[in-house]
Amino acid sequence: MSSSGLTSFLFSTAEMTSVFSPQAQLRALTRFEWALSCALEADGRAEPGSGAVLERFLGAEFVDVEGLLREARDAGNIAIPFLRQLTAAVKEVSEGAARSLHLGATSQDVLDTALVLQIREGLHLLEDALARLEAALLEQVGRHRDAVMLGRTWLQAGPPVTFGLKLAGVLTALRRDRQRIREEAVRVLVLQFGGAVGTLASLGSAGGSIAANLAQLLELAEPEMPWHAQRDNLVAIVQVLAVLTGTLAKLGRDVALLMQSEVGEVFEGGSDGRGGSSTMPHKHNPVGSAALVAIHAKMPELVATMLHAMPQEHERGLGLWQAEWDAVPEAFRLASSSIGYATEILDGLKVDVGQMRANLEATRGLPLAEAVSGVLAPKIGRAAAHEVLRRAVDRAGTEGLHLSEVLQQMPEVQAHLSGAEVDALLDASNYLGSAQRYIARAVGDDDADG
Amino acid sequence: MSSSGLTSFLFSTAEMTSVFSPQAQLRALTRFEWALSCALEADGRAEPGSGAVLERFLGAEFVDVEGLLREARDAGNIAIPFLRQLTAAVKEVSEGAARSLHLGATSQDVLDTALVLQIREGLHLLEDALARLEAALLEQVGRHRDAVMLGRTWLQAGPPVTFGLKLAGVLTALRRDRQRIREEAVRVLVLQFGGAVGTLASLGSAGGSIAANLAQLLELAEPEMPWHAQRDNLVAIVQVLAVLTGTLAKLGRDVALLMQSEVGEVFEGGSDGRGGSSTMPHKHNPVGSAALVAIHAKMPELVATMLHAMPQEHERGLGLWQAEWDAVPEAFRLASSSIGYATEILDGLKVDVGQMRANLEATRGLPLAEAVSGVLAPKIGRAAAHEVLRRAVDRAGTEGLHLSEVLQQMPEVQAHLSGAEVDALLDASNYLGSAQRYIARAVGDDDADG
Amino acid sequence: MSSSGLTSFLFSTAEMTSVFSPQAQLRALTRFEWALSCALEADGRAEPGSGAVLERFLGAEFVDVEGLLREARDAGNIAIPFLRQLTAAVKEVSEGAARSLHLGATSQDVLDTALVLQIREGLHLLEDALARLEAALLEQVGRHRDAVMLGRTWLQAGPPVTFGLKLAGVLTALRRDRQRIREEAVRVLVLQFGGAVGTLASLGSAGGSIAANLAQLLELAEPEMPWHAQRDNLVAIVQVLAVLTGTLAKLGRDVALLMQSEVGEVFEGGSDGRGGSSTMPHKHNPVGSAALVAIHAKMPELVATMLHAMPQEHERGLGLWQAEWDAVPEAFRLASSSIGYATEILDGLKVDVGQMRANLEATRGLPLAEAVSGVLAPKIGRAAAHEVLRRAVDRAGTEGLHLSEVLQQMPEVQAHLSGAEVDALLDASNYLGSAQRYIARAVGDDDADG
Amino acid sequence: MSSSGLTSFLFSTAEMTSVFSPQAQLRALTRFEWALSCALEADGRAEPGSGAVLERFLGAEFVDVEGLLREARDAGNIAIPFLRQLTAAVKEVSEGAARSLHLGATSQDVLDTALVLQIREGLHLLEDALARLEAALLEQVGRHRDAVMLGRTWLQAGPPVTFGLKLAGVLTALRRDRQRIREEAVRVLVLQFGGAVGTLASLGSAGGSIAANLAQLLELAEPEMPWHAQRDNLVAIVQVLAVLTGTLAKLGRDVALLMQSEVGEVFEGGSDGRGGSSTMPHKHNPVGSAALVAIHAKMPELVATMLHAMPQEHERGLGLWQAEWDAVPEAFRLASSSIGYATEILDGLKVDVGQMRANLEATRGLPLAEAVSGVLAPKIGRAAAHEVLRRAVDRAGTEGLHLSEVLQQMPEVQAHLSGAEVDALLDASNYLGSAQRYIARAVGDDDADG
Repeated sequence: MSSSGLTSFLFSTAEMTSVFSPQAQLRALTRFEWALSCALEADGRAEPGSGAVLERFLGAEFVDVEGLLREARDAGNIAIPFLRQLTAAVKEVSEGAARSLHLGATSQDVLDTALVLQIREGLHLLEDALARLEAALLEQVGRHRDAVMLGRTWLQAGPPVTFGLKLAGVLTALRRDRQRIREEAVRVLVLQFGGAVGTLASLGSAGGSIAANLAQLLELAEPEMPWHAQRDNLVAIVQVLAVLTGTLAKLGRDVALLMQSEVGEVFEGGSDGRGGSSTMPHKHNPVGSAALVAIHAKMPELVATMLHAMPQEHERGLGLWQAEWDAVPEAFRLASSSIGYATEILDGLKVDVGQMRANLEATRGLPLAEAVSGVLAPKIGRAAAHEVLRRAVDRAGTEGLHLSEVLQQMPEVQAHLSGAEVDALLDASNYLGSAQRYIARAVGDDDADG
Repeated sequence: MSSSGLTSFLFSTAEMTSVFSPQAQLRALTRFEWALSCALEADGRAEPGSGAVLERFLGAEFVDVEGLLREARDAGNIAIPFLRQLTAAVKEVSEGAARSLHLGATSQDVLDTALVLQIREGLHLLEDALARLEAALLEQVGRHRDAVMLGRTWLQAGPPVTFGLKLAGVLTALRRDRQRIREEAVRVLVLQFGGAVGTLASLGSAGGSIAANLAQLLELAEPEMPWHAQRDNLVAIVQVLAVLTGTLAKLGRDVALLMQSEVGEVFEGGSDGRGGSSTMPHKHNPVGSAALVAIHAKMPELVATMLHAMPQEHERGLGLWQAEWDAVPEAFRLASSSIGYATEILDGLKVDVGQMRANLEATRGLPLAEAVSGVLAPKIGRAAAHEVLRRAVDRAGTEGLHLSEVLQQMPEVQAHLSGAEVDALLDASNYLGSAQRYIARAVGDDDADG
Repeated sequence: MSSSGLTSFLFSTAEMTSVFSPQAQLRALTRFEWALSCALEADGRAEPGSGAVLERFLGAEFVDVEGLLREARDAGNIAIPFLRQLTAAVKEVSEGAARSLHLGATSQDVLDTALVLQIREGLHLLEDALARLEAALLEQVGRHRDAVMLGRTWLQAGPPVTFGLKLAGVLTALRRDRQRIREEAVRVLVLQFGGAVGTLASLGSAGGSIAANLAQLLELAEPEMPWHAQRDNLVAIVQVLAVLTGTLAKLGRDVALLMQSEVGEVFEGGSDGRGGSSTMPHKHNPVGSAALVAIHAKMPELVATMLHAMPQEHERGLGLWQAEWDAVPEAFRLASSSIGYATEILDGLKVDVGQMRANLEATRGLPLAEAVSGVLAPKIGRAAAHEVLRRAVDRAGTEGLHLSEVLQQMPEVQAHLSGAEVDALLDASNYLGSAQRYIARAVGDDDADG
Repeated sequence: MSSSGLTSFLFSTAEMTSVFSPQAQLRALTRFEWALSCALEADGRAEPGSGAVLERFLGAEFVDVEGLLREARDAGNIAIPFLRQLTAAVKEVSEGAARSLHLGATSQDVLDTALVLQIREGLHLLEDALARLEAALLEQVGRHRDAVMLGRTWLQAGPPVTFGLKLAGVLTALRRDRQRIREEAVRVLVLQFGGAVGTLASLGSAGGSIAANLAQLLELAEPEMPWHAQRDNLVAIVQVLAVLTGTLAKLGRDVALLMQSEVGEVFEGGSDGRGGSSTMPHKHNPVGSAALVAIHAKMPELVATMLHAMPQEHERGLGLWQAEWDAVPEAFRLASSSIGYATEILDGLKVDVGQMRANLEATRGLPLAEAVSGVLAPKIGRAAAHEVLRRAVDRAGTEGLHLSEVLQQMPEVQAHLSGAEVDALLDASNYLGSAQRYIARAVGDDDADG
């Protein structure tokens, strides 16, 4: 059970939990040792057939986890007891294969490279999930491109936007987030193999060719040099995942706000049972939106831990390496869950266009004061126009009148605008500026900039 | 950031893992429901015998964890499916007892109060462990009060301290840390029981008496009012644990530095296997010290998460409550492991007084320049004395001479100090100032300030 | 200008900016040196009259700040060039007084103790401001104790609370926050004076009495021993301020949510110009609430920095001490600004009780379903009652009916409740449970628990 | 957490302080308004000559900063009072130009875009400084490629590396860090211009062309759409700077450790006064290394603040936007200072190759046990070899013998290795594996992989 057991339903997906499960880590550790045996064999440093022997252990069933953890406390990491167990298991099959096990490598090599292998699986999951999410988002942007609604700044009603535009903002950010993930993936999917201090000294002059072969067997890139004490790539992959969950938390926050009882414009879908309350039968809680917020609230801590852990001493740090261990898997779990919830929300989204319009109308034209001000400004000056509107807005507010009514009674307005003109200016559909152009660019319409 | 899985050997103790295990949480949830049934029964709102029925379920064996997690995803928390399962189980025994289950309470009541019950267990473990740690530290302070060693600032040799004094600093901080934990324990060990929005409305006018009874049954204090949306107590308990691990990380860092190959003054003890390297048979790594550093490196982010999660909306927040869930248990796990490692280090500490002296001597008197400067200053002025010593130090440094030799050749020194006086000034044992007084105060000697 | 210049209007108050201004720090540094000269003089280690000479410099006008910063870059801190400048200035008045300047002390002594002196001023400001804030809050709790409004969980309408109850939650948290500040104030307001490595060795056996005298002159407590390498007290004072701003951010978030255009129940007051928009004349933004949120969003970072900076090496750390320098002043600035904004909001608060009632009514009784469910449960069982209400709520939702109307048509309800009983159950004023009791406890009414 | 005031010597450079100074921000704000006036003029929405009028104000001398801050408190940001002051100033020159000021824009447009303009300046400074730093590092890698020294893991002596290899690790990380900065620079250097809610509605259909023109005038890219509520680019630029300071903090930490009195292999250079102590004339503190550590210790929390601030509500957030304001400038200041200190350290680096060799020799061959073990392993098995060496190491340790001496007395060794062979194996220069190959790759030697 990942992410503290009973919270895993919120903070991970089953697939990602599996990628970073203890068993998966043990398999990844074994895979490193298998590949190393193969590479050593190719170089004549392991008995012929060693790789084939190791291959039988790739399932890592040989591991006694309790014993591993018990010994790890003295060893300081799990690699040492893992190797002891692996060696014992291999020895029963082949003394020869056991002899060359781990040759040239150190604990950090196997732990770091195993982590990279798990990261690769994690990135595959994320990339697929992100493609689905982006498609879902793209569809919703298109579907709601004309759904006029209040824009809101400082949580106050403002001039109108469309729901499609709001989602287009998320879509463009999501694309940048994916691009960041791709850029960092290239850097992070590299072998770590340096031996005790990063020189591969125990392999003599063969280190280079064995490392190259090892990388190839694991389908990882070979880095310029071992990075046991340079942790930037791991930090950076966590960082880009954190930006991603930030983008989705913004989506979640907005949906939750739109789902407020007093707003009621947008709703999470999902099964009937979703979001039910133990005490309040009338409630349908924004469970997915809350998840997006909750997940992201944990991400900055992982990034900060990774950053603080960077100044690792000399050729292997004193404690800071260990501080990384939980952070990378947790970042992948959180990101996967965030994408999952976001996709669910978008797939099931219910949008009440009528309520959007009703909320707009309930503002009695006030958020569109800017539209009138904008037309008056060239005629009477920006400050004067602002002042006219401020007075009109004040009166409309105090007396509960529609702004149109107030404006049409003001001589300064009458001098320049007819009643119909005022009404047209206060029609939200007429005051969307470049919204459609931006949506078109976001969804990739050919004529976006036409 | 979870510490379950294969890193638990480093980031938790078995006991604390158990206190915050899924099973323990489920038992704590059940305990709340049991106590509530008892309180309702006493108030006549539950059938006679309901409490007794609930008592049979305190082991929480009835829970189907997989089902719980599956349903929790739609519900948004585990309390709702937990109650569904509990109700089903109780109903098989007593329809009557099932009817009043959870009456008056909401999900957050049972989840928050269960957490408080787990915190209480956690605090008991910590308090016992802290008492042992403080005793171990006290003994080491006393044992090494006269072990003269280099003081070090900016990682540079300075005037001498004793190893007892260094540890006394940790001891006094540890006592303050314990005091902080005690102060917060009083505030955090309180019932949460407010119903849907904190008014206990569904209990009518009986809320007060039922809450009081419920608190008594759970042996918790009753707060001034429900705190579902005021999270300061939970934040604060995590904060004081983080300060504690900070104090112990400082101990760990110092031990690791003293254990460097080039320093070699202090060593972690422990079993023969401890700290062995997979590639370097000669090495004994500071495994415990590294653990202290690693553990603390994770703590600040738990605190940050808790703090960021404080502005929870209205009567129950949107996502930020959930963000707390893993942080509190993790803080307890980390604190317990930190105390455990620190105690082990202190219990097994090996101190090489000879090496301390050798390292002092290797500095050729330079760090004691201040002692000479201090005696010269009243005679020739502080600036002049500083200047004399700077020149002497420069020459001693450049020519590899002992400072005593250089000083005895300088007329400005000869004018005021004999050779024997210079030598006495450069004897580290003579330059410990108030060290013994501070140690005496730290260990509580009667005549500390005599 | 503090807090990055043009953001100081938001993140500090003028008074707190002044307490932690460069000039104030320089004066505090000078005050330490003055008190030390007095203490040395009393001990016969400074020329008679030295203290009196130093007293003339307490205004710190002698400092050349640019020169100070230039030299500090090489020195690593400002204490060294500060002392050079002070010595030069004093020497012009009295060679004798200059000779004993800083005797026995090290840079960290003067920097740490000066910080403590500034903290004391900061705590005075905060304590006064907190007293005013608590009074303002207390008054608002009393004033709005009966203002019935929707409770809201997950941003969804729930059973009713009163606005006084909502504020009472803040009040009780604020009292705990003040208590925490007082507890930490006792620990943090202590002298730091240890010399090069914490032994006061350069003062021989007189260290104790000089330290005691120095503490008395500065009106600080004397700690058990110097704490140059044990930073828990500084960390802890920042932590308790962060909890405080968290409590106030929750207030700010709630006010901002209540001030939403669609909610309109509560408003910040303040001058006419407050919260005006550059483009939207109709808007009055929740400027103070936003400030409370913004301020707290920065606090966790300060706490995390302080915690990460704890493992300072040996007798003076390598970089981590410096990492603290900005965090402590900034925490005080942020706290002061938070209290200031919160007090302004409370003093100017406008509450629209009519809108609270209107929003309640607009929910057509749905959030009170629990009240009916609670009465039905003892008669037909909790699950059945929950189910009845769920169906009623669904129909009321779908058909836009009032819950009362729907319920009165249901045979399962008719069998147990009259129409008048249903209406009474759905009257929010009748469903406040223990709200008044909790308010009474919070405001300290004598009969709160009567 | 501001770095103005008396800590600026440590946490910024003069140049970067200037780029993010209040005056520079005011000039950037004015530049936006100038460019907007030009773009409006080109579109016929501003009087001919408006741009030219605005150009006269680019120095921002017209601003009354105190008034600005006073008004900003009510306004919630400085843009509103800034515009009031700008309008007043422009009006004195040209009523016409004043009329169209800020048309179409909102406060966030001018504040965000001004920040981007400052970021561009900041990135220029960083890019130049990074080029110098990389050159300095490259030179040092080359110079010390053959300087054999102890490798150190867990702060314990390990097999040898060369100092050039250690620095090559930093060099390769630094190159990746620069690449990240370049990738994010492309994304962040974009115009923000969206009006009240991101639609540019007040410009009707002309928004697109005016925005394009505005971007061109400011030499910024035009984004797909306004990003007022999507903050990923700002977060990401802070993140990559934080990784950079992490890389340099690792350098700082290593230098400080190598500079320890007991190690003495590497020293910071710099002026004579650098690192002097106020009380200890013999000391030369690692001031620059400490700065690298201190600077990075502040970075993670800036990143965390930026990440936590991402979920900004709807079209403009409530408080979280403000939380960003200090973080971005501070990140640039810290990064600039970090690069500055790192460059100074590298330029002045003093390396004591003799001491490196002496420290190696003092380990009596123990860290090279692996070399012998590696040669024995193929002959007697890895476990047996490890065991032989463990015994040899134990005896060498206990009896203070050189490992060579012990080994040559062991029959298991004698059977396979001559004394000369043992000595050769224990010669550090023979046990560097791929070190030169990695260095060659890092410095770009043609035949690195030959």
